[in-house]
This record gives sequence, C-alpha cells and structure tokens, in this order.
Amino acid sequence: MNFGIPDFMSTLTRVSKALAMLPLLMGTLAADEGMWLFNDLPVKHLKDKYGFTPTPEWSEHVMKSCVRFNVGGSASFISSNGLVLTNHHVGSDTLFKLSNEENDYYNDGFLAKNFGEELKAPDLELNQLLNIKDVTAQVNAAVTPGLSAAEAAKARRAAIANIEKQATDESGLRSNVVTLYGGGRYHLYQYKKYTDVRLVWSPEANAAFFGGDADNFEYPRYCLDACIFRVYEDGKPAKIEHFLKWSPNGPADKELVFVAGNPGRTSRIFTVAALKHQRDVRLPYILDFIRRREVLLQQFALQGKESARRAHDGLFGFQNGRKARMGMLQGLQDPAVMSAKEQAEADLLAKIEADPKLRKYAGAWEKIADVQKRRAATQGMGVNLNEQLFNLAQQLVQMAEEDKKPSAERMPAYRDSNRASLEQQLFSTAPVYKDLEQVIISDLISRMVEKRGGDDELCQKILAGKSPIDRGEELISGTKMDDPEFRKTLAAGGSKAIEASTDPLIQLARMVDSEVRAEQLAGDELAEIERQAYAQIAEAQFATQGTSTYPDATFSLRLAFGPVLGYTEKGKEIPSMTNFGGAFQHEAAHAGQEYFDLPKSWHVARDAKKIDLATPYNFVCTADIIGGNSGSPVINEKMELVGLIFDGNIQSLTADYLYSDRQGRATSVHSNAIRDAIRNIYGADSLADQLGK
Amino acid sequence: MNFGIPDFMSTLTRVSKALAMLPLLMGTLAADEGMWLFNDLPVKHLKDKYGFTPTPEWSEHVMKSCVRFNVGGSASFISSNGLVLTNHHVGSDTLFKLSNEENDYYNDGFLAKNFGEELKAPDLELNQLLNIKDVTAQVNAAVTPGLSAAEAAKARRAAIANIEKQATDESGLRSNVVTLYGGGRYHLYQYKKYTDVRLVWSPEANAAFFGGDADNFEYPRYCLDACIFRVYEDGKPAKIEHFLKWSPNGPADKELVFVAGNPGRTSRIFTVAALKHQRDVRLPYILDFIRRREVLLQQFALQGKESARRAHDGLFGFQNGRKARMGMLQGLQDPAVMSAKEQAEADLLAKIEADPKLRKYAGAWEKIADVQKRRAATQGMGVNLNEQLFNLAQQLVQMAEEDKKPSAERMPAYRDSNRASLEQQLFSTAPVYKDLEQVIISDLISRMVEKRGGDDELCQKILAGKSPIDRGEELISGTKMDDPEFRKTLAAGGSKAIEASTDPLIQLARMVDSEVRAEQLAGDELAEIERQAYAQIAEAQFATQGTSTYPDATFSLRLAFGPVLGYTEKGKEIPSMTNFGGAFQHEAAHAGQEYFDLPKSWHVARDAKKIDLATPYNFVCTADIIGGNSGSPVINEKMELVGLIFDGNIQSLTADYLYSDRQGRATSVHSNAIRDAIRNIYGADSLADQLGK
Repeated sequence: MNFGIPDFMSTLTRVSKALAMLPLLMGTLAADEGMWLFNDLPVKHLKDKYGFTPTPEWSEHVMKSCVRFNVGGSASFISSNGLVLTNHHVGSDTLFKLSNEENDYYNDGFLAKNFGEELKAPDLELNQLLNIKDVTAQVNAAVTPGLSAAEAAKARRAAIANIEKQATDESGLRSNVVTLYGGGRYHLYQYKKYTDVRLVWSPEANAAFFGGDADNFEYPRYCLDACIFRVYEDGKPAKIEHFLKWSPNGPADKELVFVAGNPGRTSRIFTVAALKHQRDVRLPYILDFIRRREVLLQQFALQGKESARRAHDGLFGFQNGRKARMGMLQGLQDPAVMSAKEQAEADLLAKIEADPKLRKYAGAWEKIADVQKRRAATQGMGVNLNEQLFNLAQQLVQMAEEDKKPSAERMPAYRDSNRASLEQQLFSTAPVYKDLEQVIISDLISRMVEKRGGDDELCQKILAGKSPIDRGEELISGTKMDDPEFRKTLAAGGSKAIEASTDPLIQLARMVDSEVRAEQLAGDELAEIERQAYAQIAEAQFATQGTSTYPDATFSLRLAFGPVLGYTEKGKEIPSMTNFGGAFQHEAAHAGQEYFDLPKSWHVARDAKKIDLATPYNFVCTADIIGGNSGSPVINEKMELVGLIFDGNIQSLTADYLYSDRQGRATSVHSNAIRDAIRNIYGADSLADQLGK
Repeated sequence: MNFGIPDFMSTLTRVSKALAMLPLLMGTLAADEGMWLFNDLPVKHLKDKYGFTPTPEWSEHVMKSCVRFNVGGSASFISSNGLVLTNHHVGSDTLFKLSNEENDYYNDGFLAKNFGEELKAPDLELNQLLNIKDVTAQVNAAVTPGLSAAEAAKARRAAIANIEKQATDESGLRSNVVTLYGGGRYHLYQYKKYTDVRLVWSPEANAAFFGGDADNFEYPRYCLDACIFRVYEDGKPAKIEHFLKWSPNGPADKELVFVAGNPGRTSRIFTVAALKHQRDVRLPYILDFIRRREVLLQQFALQGKESARRAHDGLFGFQNGRKARMGMLQGLQDPAVMSAKEQAEADLLAKIEADPKLRKYAGAWEKIADVQKRRAATQGMGVNLNEQLFNLAQQLVQMAEEDKKPSAERMPAYRDSNRASLEQQLFSTAPVYKDLEQVIISDLISRMVEKRGGDDELCQKILAGKSPIDRGEELISGTKMDDPEFRKTLAAGGSKAIEASTDPLIQLARMVDSEVRAEQLAGDELAEIERQAYAQIAEAQFATQGTSTYPDATFSLRLAFGPVLGYTEKGKEIPSMTNFGGAFQHEAAHAGQEYFDLPKSWHVARDAKKIDLATPYNFVCTADIIGGNSGSPVINEKMELVGLIFDGNIQSLTADYLYSDRQGRATSVHSNAIRDAIRNIYGADSLADQLGK
C-alpha cells in the first residue's frame, strides 16, 4: 500500500476541488447528512434507505452508553465495571496533568495492572445523558413582546436559570437548557455526573498520533488514538447498566454504522452575511491568534526537553485547530461555494416573499447582517488575558461578586446548579508551569497593547509602567494562584477576601472586571438578536422544507450515520480500511521524520509475531461529524462497538457549514485493532477480558 | 563555562530591563553611539576618547576594502586575489541556490580545492564603494516652492535620476543617490560592481548556526558564521588593491575596534507619532505576516527531508526577522521607553518654540503624524503577491511599460543606470521550486482575500472563480516564469511580447498593475511629505545639538566603533570572549536538541588535537550596528581584520530606535577562530595561506 507522501497543500487543494464539484445541493439534505437529536431521530430515512428502524430501546441504550468529557470530547461506557473508551487526544489533557518531569504518560503510555494502580484525574467531569425535554414554550414565555434585546437576553437567561435550578433541585442531576436551531427550540438535558475518573490504559503518543501534524486530517491513517479511563463511585468502580458490547469482528466494508457523540459547533444555518463575517473577519482573526500562539509555544519548547513536554499539550491543540480552520476558510473563500450559499438563501427568501404567512420572517436576515457589522467593529478590541492562572483569578473575582445575587440572576457559570462543576475546575490539583504561564500572559498583554494601541488607558493600567514581559514576570512570580489551597481559601472568604487580596492576578482581574462585564452584556445582546432572528429563519425553513431536519451542533449528544465507505481521489481508489501491516509500511516510507517512528512495543510485537498484520486498523465512513465527536463510539445496528471516531479527512473540513459525502469522511480506529493491541502489543490481558463485559 | 539553558523569554525580559535602567539620555549621544558616514567620521570624538585619529588614508583603505552584498549584507576583501569574507548567513542565499537534492552545500559545507572548483553564484552582485559626493543642493533645487507633495516627489525623483545617470555615464560606476537624515542631505555613492562571484569555502550549517533559533541573538555564542567567496574579472580572480590584512592575534579585551559595513535601516530620527505607528500598526502587522509564513513553511517542511531543505532558507530568514522585531516591539511597548522619547521630543519642541529662527520647523511633527494616520488607514489593503515567480512576471510587465519613457521618468528600478543589476536578478539561473512557490502564492492570495474581504472586486478577479489554493495551483503549474530563457525572450520582446503573452503570471501581473502603480504613487507622496518634514527636524537638531551627529542607517557604508567589552547581567559577569572549548561544553549541555550538534569535522579535529580549545571563538564589542551589518569586518587601529560581525545580543534589539552600550553588544567571530578552523578543521591550507595576503 503506498499512497505517497502526505502533502498538506495538495490535500487542501482536495478540499476545494471536492467542493467545486459538488452538485450544489445546499438547502436540501445530502444522503447521510445530519447530526440528529436523540429525541428526534430520522427514523423514516433510516427505514427507507437502510431498512433499519432504531427502536426506543435501541436509542435509550445507545444514549445512556455515551459519555461526554467536559473538557471537550466524547466517549462511551464499554464495561459493566465503569470502563470508558475515548481518544488518546481527548484524554491527553489528563495524561498531561498526571505527568511530570519523571513520568511522561502522554509520550510513554500507561497501564494500570490493577484497580489500585489506576490514576485519578485531577479535574475530569464525565456526563451521561439520561433524558431530554422540550422547554421551548417555557423559555419563550419569558421573552414578552416589547422587550429590548438586552432586556430579552436577561429575561431569557433568568428563565433558563430557573428551569435548570428547578430540574437540578428535583433530580440532583446536572441540568442544562440547550439552545437548538440557533434559538428555534430549547431542550432541557439532564446528566448523571462522574467526577472520580481514573486512567487505566494509554498507548504511547507515537502509536496514538502516528504521523503527527503531517498526517493529521489525512487518510489513509494508522493511529491507535485511544485510551481507557474508569469511573468510580464512592471509591469503587461504578456499576454501569448501559454499556456497549464489543463487536466480535468490527464493521464490514459498506456496512451501515452509527456515531453517537457530542459535535461541538456547526454553522449550517448561518446566513450568507454570517458566513462572510466568518470568512472576512472571524476566521482570519482566530488564525492569526493561533499562529501567534504556535510560534510562541515552539519558541518556548526550544529551551529543552522538559520545556518541550510542557508546551506540547497546548501546541498540539493549536496546530490541530489551525489546520481545521484553514480548511474551513479555504472553502469559504471559494467563490463557487459562496455563490451556492447565496443562491440557496435567495431561493428561501423568494419562497418567503411569495407566501403572505411567511413574509414576517423576511427581516431576520437583515438583523443578522447588522449583528455581524457590530461584531466586526469591535473584533479583537476586548480584554483577552485568557491564561490559566489569570482565568482562575477572574473566576474567583466574578464568583464573589455573582454570589451576592440570587442564583437565577448570576452569569450562567456561577449559578448554584453549576457550582460543583465549577469547583471541580477551580480547585484542580493539576500542575501549573509558571515559566510557561508567564510567557503566555506576557504575550497576551503584548497582544492587547497591539490591538488597542499602547496609549489605551486600560492597557496602561495593565502594564503598570512596565514592558509586557516584565509585567508578566511580576504577575506570575507574585501570584499564589497556582496553589489550590490558596484558591480554596479565597473562594471561602467571598468578596471580603477578594477585596483584601494583594495577589497581583486577583488585583488584575478586579481591574478589568467592569470592562469584561460590559463586553459580556454587549455580547449577550447581540447573541439575543441573533437567537430571535435564527428562530425566525428556522420557522421559515420548517415551513418550506418540513421539520425533518436537524439543528446545528451544540456540544450535546447527537446521532450520525452512514456506511463504511472508501472514496475516489485524483482517480485513485482509497479503500475504506487500513491494517497493521500498512502502519509498518508507512513508517518505512517516512524513515527519519518526526512522529513516524512506531513505538518499540509495536516492533517487539511484530517481530514476535504476536499481531496479525492483516488486522484492520483505521476505517472511514460517511457519518456527519465535527470537532467534539472525537472519542465517539461507532456502533452497528446490534448496538455493538465497532470503532472509535478520532478524525475527519481533509475533505470533511468544510463540515462546519457544508456536509458532503462525495469525499468527506469520518475516520475511526477499528474495534479489532484496539482489542488486539491491548492484548497482544500492551500485554493487558486482564483489561482486554473486561471489554464489553 | 556554564551560562545555563538559553531562555528566549527571559532574554527578552533582559531587553526591557536593560532599557528601564537607562539613564534616559535620548537626545544626546551615548558613549560609542553612531553609524558614521565615511565622509564625516567622528574624528574629534575618537581622538578625545581613544587618542586615535583615522587619517584620510586610513578611511580610504578601510572604505575600499569593504564590499556590499546586494542581497543584503556586508563583507570585505581579504586578499589581493579577490577573496571576500562574509557570514554564512549572508552567503546562505547563494549556498541555497547552488544546492539541490544531491548536494546540500548549506548544511554540509563546501570547499573548492582549486580555482577550477570554485562555484559561480547565479545572481550575486557585490559593490565596492569608491567615492561619496554631497549633492543636496542639486536635489533640493528641483523641488521648487509651491509644488504639491506628489509633484515634489516626482521632481525629486527626476533630479536624482539625472544625477545618477550623469554619474554613471561619466564613470561607468554604479551610482546611487542616498537620502540621509530622513531627507536632510543627499549624497551620491559610486560603486565598482562585481558580478562574477564564486563560492570558495563554507562550513557546515551546524558550525555556522550552532544553537539554531534558540541561541540566535543570545550571548555567549559559539558560531563559525563565516564563508568565503572570490570575485572574478574577465574569468580570472580579480586583482584587489585594497584588502584587509589578517591580524596575527585578533583583538584584546577592551581594545578599540571598528566595524565597517552597511547597516540597513534605523529609525532614530523618528518622531513619537512615527514610533507609535511602528508600535501599534506596523510592527504588529509585520509580525502577523512573519508568523503566518513561518507556520506555512514549517507545514511544507513536514512533507519530508527535501521539502525541509527547500523551505529552510526562507524559514531561517523569517524566524530571525520575527525575533528581531519582537525585541523592537517589546521596547516600544515599554511605557518608560516611550515616555523618554516623548520627553526628548518635548524638549526639542520647547527649544524651537523659544527661538524665533527655528519656529518655522515646528509644523514638521504634525505633518509626520498625519502621514502615519494615512498609512494606518490603508495598512495591509494593497496588492501583496510578493512571491518569487510573480515578482519576476511583475518586473517584466513593469519594465516593458517603463521602457516607453525616458530613463529619468521611470520607476527607479527600471532606469538605465540600474539595468545591468536588474538583469542580473531577472535572468538568474537559480533553481525555483514550484511546489514551494505554489504554497506561497496560494497563501498570499488567501491573505489578500482576508484583508480586503472576499467580495472585493480585484480579489474576485484574481481568484477567477477558484479557491486560493486551486488558483495558486493553476498559476504556478501554468507559468513558464521559472525558465530564465523564457524570461529573456519576454524581456527582449518588450511590451508587444508582454501584451501577447498567455502566461498566467504575466496576465496576473498585468491585471494588478494599475493598482500597484497607484499604491506606489500614493506611497511616494507620503514619503515626500515625510522627507520634507524630517529635513526640517534635522535642521532643527543641527541648530540645537550641533552637526556632529550621524544619519539613520540607509544600507550604505558606515563606520561604527567601540571597545571589545563584556557586560553584567543579573549580577553575573559575561566575559567578552568565548573559545572553542566552550563550544564543546555548550554542545554537551544541550545534548539531543536540534542545532546543538557540532559537525563531525569538529569532533575529528578535537579528538586528533588539531585545534587548541583555548582559541578565542566569538566576542562582543559596543559598536553600534543593526541588520545589514552582518558580514562586516571588525578592524583594529592598524586596519587589520580582527573579527567578523554576525549578530547582536538580545539587549541590542532596540537599536532600531535606541542605542545603549550598557548591555547591548555586537557579536563577532574572532579572526583567529576563522583562520584556525579553515586550516585545522577544514584542512584548507592553501586557502588559509591566502588570507590577508
């Protein structure tokens, strides 16, 4: 198998070529498009096209077998004794927090030989969705006619807070109202929380992220991007009722599979004006920020091996985010894509104009366009000191202030219903590397001075007469915010303790607090205008296209589906699956390149003939996924685990605003590969025995 | 010797700390400040402070021993048979152009065993300055009262063109009028040109750039950043009258040394408004661009070893430029620095207001502030397709158009006096890597779309209905601009050939030509307003501070000076010199890090005891240098070569607008190190025998 050297730019070429050849079906659903709500699955479509009907039992079992990682990612229960399967790159935040100069679990892997050796994550919270309820009427009832956007936003926030509080009080469950269809619907999601989460097994980074940044978003792939945690209750492995059985053989080529996970965010309902804002303002701005941080972290990493380790977790995230957004931007900059979107919008507007009942919705587009203009005008001018220790200080400052109000009137993060989750983060014992944090906050201050100008009054106050780097050094060397006990004491002391604190980061957070709050309110107002406008657009779409559609992704549980399917690229057939043997061939083809060395464990297992080189390794299917789906289980009709989502190919990067199954594919680790690697490469027979049981 | 791990951010901290502790002498000259004109050396200062008087013979000999690399860099003649010494990083452009997939002279080094093996550079032009003449009165006479800024710019351009043409016609020399003191003086510089330049010797990149990006701008250093070319005339080694003799022992600690070279650009005359424009607009803009290109080239390099080689030359330049500009920005963002500048400006303005004869100059500051506002308003909105093959196409298009006019009315690059130099570049046989060029032009198109918005008319025309990447692919795969013969044919065909050409890059260059010209004219107008204003400020400074001052750097020959001198940092003494032994210790302290492995040749020489580990290697002095000085000879009072400038330390990075000799230092390779390495590490006895003879 030889698909040549992966070539980033030629793959990006593939993005736009794939789009340019689209049948331009925008406005109607493509074959397997959709990130469906578990309380509104496309039952008819599945039956008509695939002859499969998900029963209520099927969807309840799948839903309850799924787990959301609050750091951003998906996962599933895979045993009755609490095992949770997710991606190595979803677990990496915890792997990094558990590591130190001596034990580098991220790079070297980890295996607990027994329960006692399982390592407790310092701040993980896992959520299992138990039920969904439509609360649209309750939320909208709070927004009475005649309210200004700012008043409406406040009223809606309060209504949502009350619904969440009542639900939490009644059930003890984590209760969140999710805004769907950009504001067209509101659903209450209730989760069981797991906060005692322990690391069981992780492979080496060079197995999980084989091919590195060069191969990221590519296909064919050869990655064991998997790791396993276990949830505990009362200090014992939790007893789990709903978990996924392990498929004996995994999926067959062309077999229909399902992906259940938490896609983070899509923009498919976006108007043309909103997409152009993304194209011309938002994405370029974010990409500049990402590249800046990448270069900063790389420079930090040059100091030596330990610095490189400290910088790596952040660096990977930024590189990944950059590549994903470049794919999005490339599509949006393609005139063919934008004119297709314009055409679809014009068609919908024509239908609205033609129908007296719908004409009331016509103003929505103009409102959204106006919001984009207002956003563009203040782009990058706000307070951005988004650094770990400053964030903790800011949370403490805001919590003390918010706690003076009734729960429903607080900023959402500080409501009673969220307090336990907030404290899980706030009092985390994860290590903080002050040398790295100093570099980051100094750069953020320097960037604020660039954006607002060196004469800006707030910037002058932040600098306190010093250069950004000297000021960063002063802030970080002087703060005790890296000590969880110090944070606990401050939190317990409330606003008196905050006001009396001489900690430089607390003082900085107080200094910027009024502007941060003003920005927040201004942002809420714009978001409310958009919510009301998108709610109207959603109604117009329901009226003209029927209600059998799905809302944009909201980091809540969705079901996607589609066959395991290869594709054709530049006249070449790309088979749906790779195998272990291909990984070794890929290694040989890239000898000497960083991230292209398989770990020693793999070479040992191959040489000892412990693994079958024909074992299927990675595969692609047409399911409609996006960031946040990482770690999602891939399931067959029998509710068996057949794979683990970890990526999308480069042609899928436009999925934010455009799904296409021509070449766009979701990439998974094959269930056989995970099972066989655990047993035969990592020698973890006991763990392998527990899978699916 | 152990100075610990170099730490980029802590070194930047050192920049601003060094500045914060300045005696704030802005407005008066610090001890050894100055990049002096060879026709106006600080004779009295040198005599008073150092008891040394440069005689006319001294300065003529030094001036004529110097050579300018037109690609941007300095050098000197070091033998009667045409040997030229410069930095490896100045020669790297040529090393890269002479290399290919088989022979990597940049990384592996090069040694010609005899004249026949010396490799001809594809497009180098070296300039030796022969004389300087003040032509201020002639230039200013053309700018008659009552002309608008646009008219004045045109008249001044024509006057300069005529002076240059006449001088070229009379002498056959390259003749350039240099604008000094921001427009206060105009001098005619006449150069002998050498265009047959051949590579003689270069060390390995790991010796020249030991420590890589991590050590760049650091001190102590251990770099053999040197390489040697030879100029030829009529196919034979040129006979050189003025060259530098090699010092037997190099400089002693505290010895006064001189640096003769071509500093590129400083901004010391800049008004506060102009500095704030740099701080808030220009530098952030350039840094965003640099980081973008760095990330792009890194991603390209990930494809494999040959891609990494192709990307390296550009990547190094961008990394170097980023680090230098971050140092500049950090200083400008320091409130203490800016308020010192503000104070100095206020003092000068107060003197002007107090003196009726000077009051006429007071309006200059407002004019400069206004120019900055106009520049900020169009920042980044222009045509920027600055990619190698497009640039060639643009030059051909512009040349054909400009050639229709008399020489004096053309854009400066297309005047008759510059034609030979232009053709040297235009018809270069240096290899062009189309895969890399495609990535670059696609990104530049994408960036233009970002800056101007996807709906911009010119952007739409440039895209021609395609995504930036597809369009880049179309342009680069379709062009023949990489063939020097094709370019020659087009150039010979003049405007008819250009108009008939179907080459996509020629067509693109024609498409954007009118906007590029409009931008150029608008820029000329602003520059003229600034020239007139700075000329007034210069006169005000002459009147209040005397004329014993030096103009900002202009990439023309200057003399700087100062003692070889260590400094104190964080309470630690940094000695002025390092030695060969320190290089091996530094290697051991950074085992396993990229760019911290000394080449095999060095280990062999050490193990065979061919080199003395006590040999002085790098040293620092207080001379006032900046980018463009790379490759400058360091000379003692006896006109002997004692070193080779290759860097400044991190504390010198504010030199663009602020000189300080408290910690700011120029970094050189010691002459003994170069001589001994050539003989004892590289075994080039014959070459070593020629040095200084």
